[in-house]
Amino acid sequence: MSYQKELKLFELEALHPADAADELQRMEPERARNALIHLSKSQAGEILAEMEEDYATGLLDIMETGDLVPMLSELPANEVADLIPEMDEEKQSQVLSNLSIEDSEPVNALLKYEPDTAGGIMSDQFVSVRAEDTLEDGLKQIRAKAFDLENHLTYLYVIDEKQRLVGVVPLRALIFRNPATKVSEVMNNEVRFLRVTDDQEEIARQFEHYHYLGLPVLDQEDVLIGIVHVSDVLSLAQAEATEDMQLMVGLPGEERVHTPWLISLKRRSPWLLVNLLTTFFAAAVIGVFESTIAQWTALAVFLPIIAGQGGNAGMQTLTVVIRDMALGELSRGDGGRALSKEILLGVAHGLAIGTLVGLVGYIWKGDMMLGIIAAAAMLLNLVAAAISGIAIPFGLKSLKVDPALASSIFLTTVTDVAGFFFFLGLAYLALNFI
Amino acid sequence: MSYQKELKLFELEALHPADAADELQRMEPERARNALIHLSKSQAGEILAEMEEDYATGLLDIMETGDLVPMLSELPANEVADLIPEMDEEKQSQVLSNLSIEDSEPVNALLKYEPDTAGGIMSDQFVSVRAEDTLEDGLKQIRAKAFDLENHLTYLYVIDEKQRLVGVVPLRALIFRNPATKVSEVMNNEVRFLRVTDDQEEIARQFEHYHYLGLPVLDQEDVLIGIVHVSDVLSLAQAEATEDMQLMVGLPGEERVHTPWLISLKRRSPWLLVNLLTTFFAAAVIGVFESTIAQWTALAVFLPIIAGQGGNAGMQTLTVVIRDMALGELSRGDGGRALSKEILLGVAHGLAIGTLVGLVGYIWKGDMMLGIIAAAAMLLNLVAAAISGIAIPFGLKSLKVDPALASSIFLTTVTDVAGFFFFLGLAYLALNFI
Repeated sequence: MSYQKELKLFELEALHPADAADELQRMEPERARNALIHLSKSQAGEILAEMEEDYATGLLDIMETGDLVPMLSELPANEVADLIPEMDEEKQSQVLSNLSIEDSEPVNALLKYEPDTAGGIMSDQFVSVRAEDTLEDGLKQIRAKAFDLENHLTYLYVIDEKQRLVGVVPLRALIFRNPATKVSEVMNNEVRFLRVTDDQEEIARQFEHYHYLGLPVLDQEDVLIGIVHVSDVLSLAQAEATEDMQLMVGLPGEERVHTPWLISLKRRSPWLLVNLLTTFFAAAVIGVFESTIAQWTALAVFLPIIAGQGGNAGMQTLTVVIRDMALGELSRGDGGRALSKEILLGVAHGLAIGTLVGLVGYIWKGDMMLGIIAAAAMLLNLVAAAISGIAIPFGLKSLKVDPALASSIFLTTVTDVAGFFFFLGLAYLALNFI
Repeated sequence: MSYQKELKLFELEALHPADAADELQRMEPERARNALIHLSKSQAGEILAEMEEDYATGLLDIMETGDLVPMLSELPANEVADLIPEMDEEKQSQVLSNLSIEDSEPVNALLKYEPDTAGGIMSDQFVSVRAEDTLEDGLKQIRAKAFDLENHLTYLYVIDEKQRLVGVVPLRALIFRNPATKVSEVMNNEVRFLRVTDDQEEIARQFEHYHYLGLPVLDQEDVLIGIVHVSDVLSLAQAEATEDMQLMVGLPGEERVHTPWLISLKRRSPWLLVNLLTTFFAAAVIGVFESTIAQWTALAVFLPIIAGQGGNAGMQTLTVVIRDMALGELSRGDGGRALSKEILLGVAHGLAIGTLVGLVGYIWKGDMMLGIIAAAAMLLNLVAAAISGIAIPFGLKSLKVDPALASSIFLTTVTDVAGFFFFLGLAYLALNFI
């Protein structure tokens, strides 16, 4: 490993926890652990919270429960709840039973929710008041909260006697209005909110679309249980984009360069095997036409041109569709519109590129028929590429699977199989019937 | 076009501007214009600000300056400055000269900055005080600002007599402290800031890494000129991710499904031509070995397996590296570490998949030598895929080009060319020397 710089403890102490986490992630987990246990508990906790999931998993594995618990008790409950699932089951129960009741209770409450839902990403720290309270009561509550609300205090949330959300008071009301004013006089009753089970991709869409700074999270009984902040949404939007890019090429689980190689191996192998299987389909098509190639070897030269061009054009279509789906820009009815646009583009590109390839084929090999066949196969394959670039993500979506999942593998299968079939099939017809 | 639903004006009026923009973008620009000019000026302006760039360009093209100016004067300067570059030059100068001086001056100031820098994305609306002021002075200023600061008021910014930023006062100080308190007593002098020329990708990285809610923007003389808010960063992070995904397959300019087809054609064609050129390299390799294939046609069947598998494995590597680069997780020295990890993975996958392919080759074609050659070529090509998945993005970066640019096109060229060369070259050796 090329990273040999020795990092001194006092240098680590001076860093922002996010930067310290970056430094530690470049070390073997044993060294990172030794550095962590020599830092203050609160700093060590903050650094743990900033680590990438894959690295944290390995590090938590080798840390003693006795070292971990004091670090975790310095963190807000939602950050502890994010770290717990990265431990093995034994350590999870050890840690949870060694935390004080005040610390473990809110963590256990948050652990009930799926990590990729509003419940999994929300913070449980907010200030709530009753409609009959005064603004002064709200101010008192803010002062009473020990945790760091500073950066995330945009609203006071108004709840009823059953903890149900009934309104919000913008913070500016606390600045402008007389503290004796009743909350009910200044609160806004039309409140946008999230359900605790809402999916994080949908949440990212809403925050971007409507420019929210934070949204309250309600359970099925409309009880206010947490807040999702825009700064957390930024991280998860980045994670979702990473996931989509990687899923397209058969890479589940948000891999990073620092992900240990054995984890990478386990994640990539299954999809490489799927890809292998699909290349056999393409090979089988060539196998069917083996005698055609034996008669006319020049055909083999054009196979990668027809297939490669279809693959690239199809990937352009696929990428646009998958990204639009992720950003929520595609509604019902847009599929048909997208399909006609892409077919139009496929025909336009097919005519231009097909003619070009046909000319090259004619000039290179001095064979007019070869040129015509290559041109026709190219046109047909670019249309097939356009159709599959639309059909694959919409198909996966209708199967309730992530539309990005291994989509580039499926797409290149279509463009290889179709490209070889059109090209060799036309050549077979030409050889036998012309 | 399949979207035939007639949208009534009163329905449009009831929508959030972002949703109204979505609806209008599904119409021909002429219809969208007719709808806009019947809405209130402020609503029409807000809808324009929410539109996708490609659509807005076409719509602004057909709108009368007389209709546009009153809509734009309802918008904050930074949103007008975002729309201006989407007009043709003639309309730009017409619009700017028809806006009132108070409206056009700040817009002209913002237009000096590149759109993808801090200056291009910042808002020019903030509250600044002097260190010798009292908190009460700050409160007065907030009340005096007519524009909507509500959602973006996290700090008061403290400037000196030359407008240079010297500190910040968190909003909570306004709530907790006596209004007669001097700003100098509560301000924080250690302020993180952006330079007006900072690149937006780097800004997105910083916001995600440090969880900022907003950062002040300074010019070269340390003068405070604007604020970048996290909610704007969310949009630009999404745009950067879209750009990277699309650039990889040779799609510049953030294309959407709703992008008019002629614009898509113009953007995609150049890179499809580049891809075509690169497939000729792969074809040329096959051309060199044409007589080998003529002697041993079964070879042709294995070409797509060797190349396709290399392409997919290489794309896995490439995607991880490009995403890590975009998220700023890669530092100097990480390149070597990434390379050794990927080569290790390439060898491991190559041994496993090579053996499998070799066995299939042997069983399918009953030819032991074919199996051995296929296995060896697969191993070599997966190592080539690993190396090029690292070398291409690092190489593009060292050329000061976006590391994503057409990288999948370059990668599949390498895996096609290398795969064909290894496989056919080994077959040639076997035919001639064994």
